[in-house]
Amino acid sequence: MSQRIPLETMLDVFVRNLRNVGFESDRARRCASIFAENSAVGVSSHGLNRFPEFIDFVRRRIVNPAAEMVCTARFGAWEQWNGGLGPGPLNACDATIRAIELARRHGIGCVGLQQTNHWMRGGCYGWMAAEEGLAFMAWTNTKPNMPPWGATDCHLGNNPLVLAVPRPSGPVVLDMAMSQFSFGRLETYLREGKPLPVAGGYDADGVVTTDPGAILSSNRVLPIGCWKGAGLAMLLDSLAALVSGGDTTCRIGQRDPEYGVSQVFIAVDVTRAGASRGDGLMDELVADLRASRPDGENGDVRYPGQRIREMHRESLEKGVPVDPAIWEQVVSGL
Amino acid sequence: MSQRIPLETMLDVFVRNLRNVGFESDRARRCASIFAENSAVGVSSHGLNRFPEFIDFVRRRIVNPAAEMVCTARFGAWEQWNGGLGPGPLNACDATIRAIELARRHGIGCVGLQQTNHWMRGGCYGWMAAEEGLAFMAWTNTKPNMPPWGATDCHLGNNPLVLAVPRPSGPVVLDMAMSQFSFGRLETYLREGKPLPVAGGYDADGVVTTDPGAILSSNRVLPIGCWKGAGLAMLLDSLAALVSGGDTTCRIGQRDPEYGVSQVFIAVDVTRAGASRGDGLMDELVADLRASRPDGENGDVRYPGQRIREMHRESLEKGVPVDPAIWEQVVSGL
Repeated sequence: MSQRIPLETMLDVFVRNLRNVGFESDRARRCASIFAENSAVGVSSHGLNRFPEFIDFVRRRIVNPAAEMVCTARFGAWEQWNGGLGPGPLNACDATIRAIELARRHGIGCVGLQQTNHWMRGGCYGWMAAEEGLAFMAWTNTKPNMPPWGATDCHLGNNPLVLAVPRPSGPVVLDMAMSQFSFGRLETYLREGKPLPVAGGYDADGVVTTDPGAILSSNRVLPIGCWKGAGLAMLLDSLAALVSGGDTTCRIGQRDPEYGVSQVFIAVDVTRAGASRGDGLMDELVADLRASRPDGENGDVRYPGQRIREMHRESLEKGVPVDPAIWEQVVSGL
Repeated sequence: MSQRIPLETMLDVFVRNLRNVGFESDRARRCASIFAENSAVGVSSHGLNRFPEFIDFVRRRIVNPAAEMVCTARFGAWEQWNGGLGPGPLNACDATIRAIELARRHGIGCVGLQQTNHWMRGGCYGWMAAEEGLAFMAWTNTKPNMPPWGATDCHLGNNPLVLAVPRPSGPVVLDMAMSQFSFGRLETYLREGKPLPVAGGYDADGVVTTDPGAILSSNRVLPIGCWKGAGLAMLLDSLAALVSGGDTTCRIGQRDPEYGVSQVFIAVDVTRAGASRGDGLMDELVADLRASRPDGENGDVRYPGQRIREMHRESLEKGVPVDPAIWEQVVSGL
């Protein structure tokens, strides 16, 4: 990451690539914006670095650039939609907008989305909703990539979960997979030759380790909280499949590569007049957390999403950090 | 646990005690049933063992035995209710029933419940909803009892979360706090003189440990997945306060003992005709999980709630396991 690129330049380059593989103009711009913003907030694993694979998936028609999500059932505040194997980020964005519309009408709104694709950085949908003043939850299932507790082979997805709340001074957004470290994070530690800060999985002998390479080889990542994260992953998968009417991790694992995942988007319109709510309560909560006694002299107790805001500001000022080799590849056309 | 008591006997004894502290007949029976069932499924920490403290709280008027939850705002599929500092289990039970009613009408239903009390075993509300065929999520905040990641003092609650799905051969229900071990579980390990199976917190020197006594002394439990569980706890607290209009963990911590917590109950009516869903999908998912390759010769890969069903069956056959000293105390009247 020795180079920074203006956000606008990155957008233009992404749009050009997307247009080349068949994205219609407006959709190319929206999709480019999601990838560029993900890099801008420091999550290049789901921004620039993932962009070449995304283009490859479109070329191979695993992702259909023209498919828009279609409503298959309406039950009032809950709806089921089919993503038609369209671009995951666009489908997730549309599903978030629809959940917000439903919440504005019914107080709470829920969209179950089946047959969609990887949404890249789930957190961005949380920011969208919370910046509109809504409380928000969303999750996705994935292919099997995590062993159940007490097992050695992968039967669970790491099923990222997003929780977001609005706050006068800016949203608080949590975006986390059910594995202690994402695969992108393991690869980063490996590349930098660093051990993980806490155990992240097992080595080939089934011993818990902080060695990212050993974990990537054994393919046995550790669920957060051992049996608890494994349980969470299983229930999030179950709920995603039931609410969307789509496939479970088990079914998704029957094909390769991963496509046709199931997602849930729930928004609550906590701005409603007449709702009992403590204005300023969220700022008070964050202030209380930040006032915790740090463990260590230069400790700093952060809240989820805090770094995201800082990174975004920096990227707007100085440009978006990029891996020069990947950037060069994308600029010259994928 | 060297003694077993018929469930009916336990119910009668609980009802008598509840009547003595001012519970009206029907409410005494419902409340007794929740406590007895919690013991019957093996969670005596929130059944018999917690019953004396509950009665004490009613005597001290921290819990108002006559208070019923009151609706303060309706927004369609989302409602806010005030628990009036009534009995936590009865309020949570009523809120679950109301969320189900809303889901039957609107597809999804959400109840935010403020000014309520400890719901004891959250899982029982998940079983209620899933046995009616609904997908269900609920969570509660608590007083501060867990440090944020990188901090040494408690500014987060361990905020238990319940996720439940229906299944032809019986619900799958996850009920978990955001700390690696509940305080009840730490005390059980301490009493039995056993180390924890994995690290559960810090000792007095700030070193991660499996010694339950050291953790209880330092009051520094470990969140599941380190920073991830701490983030989850913060967001669940934020959502509980915003959706219910009630107090955050930070506010609840300003009084002692813990009362007036905030809870959320969300049900989705996945039985709806016209909903796209794979019947048998949940059974397939559980079967796939159970077919994982166990780590160790006599390994058994279980799903959340599996043991609960086994324990319940055993309690109905042989009686509910009790700690004889606590049982004697409750029988002789608290």
